[in-house]
Amino acid sequence: MLRLGSEIKKLEDNGIDMLHFDVMDGIFVNNITFGLPVLKQVRKVTDITLDVHLMIADPIKYVSSFAESGADIICFHLESSSDTLETIRAIKSCGVKAALAIKPATPAESVFEYLPYLDMVLVMTVEPGFGGQSFIPETIDKIRKVRSRISELGLDVDVEVDGGINDKTSPAVREAGANVFVSGSYLFAADNMAQAANSLKEDMTC
Amino acid sequence: MLRLGSEIKKLEDNGIDMLHFDVMDGIFVNNITFGLPVLKQVRKVTDITLDVHLMIADPIKYVSSFAESGADIICFHLESSSDTLETIRAIKSCGVKAALAIKPATPAESVFEYLPYLDMVLVMTVEPGFGGQSFIPETIDKIRKVRSRISELGLDVDVEVDGGINDKTSPAVREAGANVFVSGSYLFAADNMAQAANSLKEDMTC
Repeated sequence: MLRLGSEIKKLEDNGIDMLHFDVMDGIFVNNITFGLPVLKQVRKVTDITLDVHLMIADPIKYVSSFAESGADIICFHLESSSDTLETIRAIKSCGVKAALAIKPATPAESVFEYLPYLDMVLVMTVEPGFGGQSFIPETIDKIRKVRSRISELGLDVDVEVDGGINDKTSPAVREAGANVFVSGSYLFAADNMAQAANSLKEDMTC
Repeated sequence: MLRLGSEIKKLEDNGIDMLHFDVMDGIFVNNITFGLPVLKQVRKVTDITLDVHLMIADPIKYVSSFAESGADIICFHLESSSDTLETIRAIKSCGVKAALAIKPATPAESVFEYLPYLDMVLVMTVEPGFGGQSFIPETIDKIRKVRSRISELGLDVDVEVDGGINDKTSPAVREAGANVFVSGSYLFAADNMAQAANSLKEDMTC
């Protein structure tokens, strides 16, 4: 946070494809992170894809603000109080990609009806709220169900995973059908970030 | 935001006495700014007084987290949903100074009963939510009423103003009894920040 500009440059130089931007409002989750003024500044210094994950109570209210502040993808939670279909439409009407996130306790089936309208589904592999948590293995089955339904419907929807993703956990989630990996602690703690990023990308087939 | 560490150094080098940290949750005000992880990093690189202004729906819930993350002063809104006296007690029990903020539409009298328990009153001189707004002149009378009541009670309570404070507006608020001046746009747009900061401090008697 103290040298955000140069850290973003480091991500780009090390082969990171997207920046996942975790917005928390202290109501939907028990943490308050950062939001619009920070995103706006980040957008000024990078062309990297900005994947904005809204962990906020009523996301539809902020869709246009986050789009105007530079989001390329806006991801909101099925468990939020906003109407799901209306929020997806609001995101797309801003010319931004729409993603729907589910917490570990929410079943895979709950996203099925929205798949035709989505660009991405985010299957949270930890409870949202804080970095540095351990991967929840029970989420693998859920990733498999979501990917399998996407295939049955013949859709082109990404499946993103977020939480405890590292070189140990990535093979199983990849095999289950995830193709977008969010990683924080693993990349930033690595001696060689480019190598760590590559270890997550290896054999990526989707 | 992109070089927060070096900007804080700049504030210190230019004679700024406090860093006012505006936390917004998108519920209490229509903006989402930054929160705990940012404060924690800021605390690591500076000994400057960190004056944390919580523009959030239920501040009592986050008092201990902001105290642990490095706040020296925690300021919350009378208009929030937290119980005022309980929140002041929670702040003080963390060993942090307690401040109570009021929006432009809230009368001066509403803070009177809390004055004996407070270290500071923040009289907002613009509507909270965004930087760069113009000073609301009607707030001067409110500052005067708060300061006058503090004097009547023989208390040692600071009166802070926030919003549209610059070398044009500061003389009137100072005369009315404000002694802590929050300034953003004016300081950052100045050719000489130290000189701009001094112009706000001149003739400060409180």
